[in-house]
Amino acid sequence: MIRGGPLATKTLRNWIMPSSHITSAFDEELKYLARRISEMGGLAEQMCGDAVRALVNSDTALAQKVISDDVILDHAEREIGEKAIVTIAKRQPMAADLREVIGSLRIAADLERVGDLGKNTAKRVIAVQETGIPRNLARGIEHLSELALVQLKEVLDVYVTRSAEKAEAIRERDEEIDAMYTSLFRELLTYMMEDPRNITSCTHLLFCAKNIERIGDHATNIAETIYYMATGSQPEGERPKDDRSNTLSAVLSDD
Amino acid sequence: MIRGGPLATKTLRNWIMPSSHITSAFDEELKYLARRISEMGGLAEQMCGDAVRALVNSDTALAQKVISDDVILDHAEREIGEKAIVTIAKRQPMAADLREVIGSLRIAADLERVGDLGKNTAKRVIAVQETGIPRNLARGIEHLSELALVQLKEVLDVYVTRSAEKAEAIRERDEEIDAMYTSLFRELLTYMMEDPRNITSCTHLLFCAKNIERIGDHATNIAETIYYMATGSQPEGERPKDDRSNTLSAVLSDD
Repeated sequence: MIRGGPLATKTLRNWIMPSSHITSAFDEELKYLARRISEMGGLAEQMCGDAVRALVNSDTALAQKVISDDVILDHAEREIGEKAIVTIAKRQPMAADLREVIGSLRIAADLERVGDLGKNTAKRVIAVQETGIPRNLARGIEHLSELALVQLKEVLDVYVTRSAEKAEAIRERDEEIDAMYTSLFRELLTYMMEDPRNITSCTHLLFCAKNIERIGDHATNIAETIYYMATGSQPEGERPKDDRSNTLSAVLSDD
Repeated sequence: MIRGGPLATKTLRNWIMPSSHITSAFDEELKYLARRISEMGGLAEQMCGDAVRALVNSDTALAQKVISDDVILDHAEREIGEKAIVTIAKRQPMAADLREVIGSLRIAADLERVGDLGKNTAKRVIAVQETGIPRNLARGIEHLSELALVQLKEVLDVYVTRSAEKAEAIRERDEEIDAMYTSLFRELLTYMMEDPRNITSCTHLLFCAKNIERIGDHATNIAETIYYMATGSQPEGERPKDDRSNTLSAVLSDD
């Protein structure tokens, strides 16, 4: 009756050990991973919001806090990575269960990068402090970060529901952020041209704006991972932003 | 005798199916993953070299080639990802074998990002073309890219040997690239301040330089993954670059 191979082995294992016991321990591990990822998401979100606040208000103490918080996020990613690998080794999950664990690895990596982007923005607070930021630019950066953080928050909410449909809808939303970033890019160049004394600080602001725009890209990555976790396949077609060509937005976009 | 649990199940499976058969099929899959990763590495390396050549020589045809090549790299990453997951599901590897597969996933993700950085540099060729690049700056960018590409090439060679020691040595090498990038950053600011007509093109060059500097970071990531594949743990201590604080290099660095 038994022909061997992993499937038969799994059946055999369930016969040797009550499957409910294995399942509930495995479920606990999945729940733990999901909880840690939501925590990482909350912290990454807060770090990026704080970094932009620190930038706009020249608040070096808050910038320093963001830089320290990144250590927590790095540790969390490492811990989730280790836990995920131990879970795969111990439980040998298949299909949706395996995707759940692999998905956790990917999302943790994206959130860790979001934290890096917040940290990098925070590190530029001192460089920008001397000249300050014109009100208009500050508003533009705040607006860009609001868009990016709403997208990140929404994708983290979708992560809880594991809805493929909602994940696909979020993926479409990156265009607005790109358009806003491109307009900020132009505005920053104008400030530099108007007065060479703005060049150093505006250069740092350019990278800050780029960091914030990248948060949207990571939110899109996470949406794709959620889609994969739910369905086992990648969302179809290119990302919407790849439709544009030869526009400044296309030149500025990172992937 | 049989107490259940994954280990006992594994023993049982080896008894049901000759282990040499499983092992050799699994080995073939690992070899396939390793070969595809080396191919990805070769392509990513070539794309980044081509992108810098395209930039320095205003070669839009070559830039276009880099942009098209990125599709191949994206597909390769996706394929490696799918293969790795199927391998985990089918073979249920443990310990070093599992790390080998998880490591492939991580390295493929880093190489895909390296390709994105090459592509993003290539996309800026047209934006920079109008004003051209002063000889000094072109040399600086070429030098930076040589350093980064040597590091990438070396880490791909270490990948073949899976040497933890060599992987650790490469990790120490990122500092030189950071120093070179910081000096380029200063030089680009100077050009912008000297003549506002340089601002647009120098801004794009700043992002190109940043892209190239990031290649070094990904090479360092790959070195850390190789270390993990060989030893099962992460290399100890912070990356060398994190020792600096309050320097421009520290502000400019991305993690």
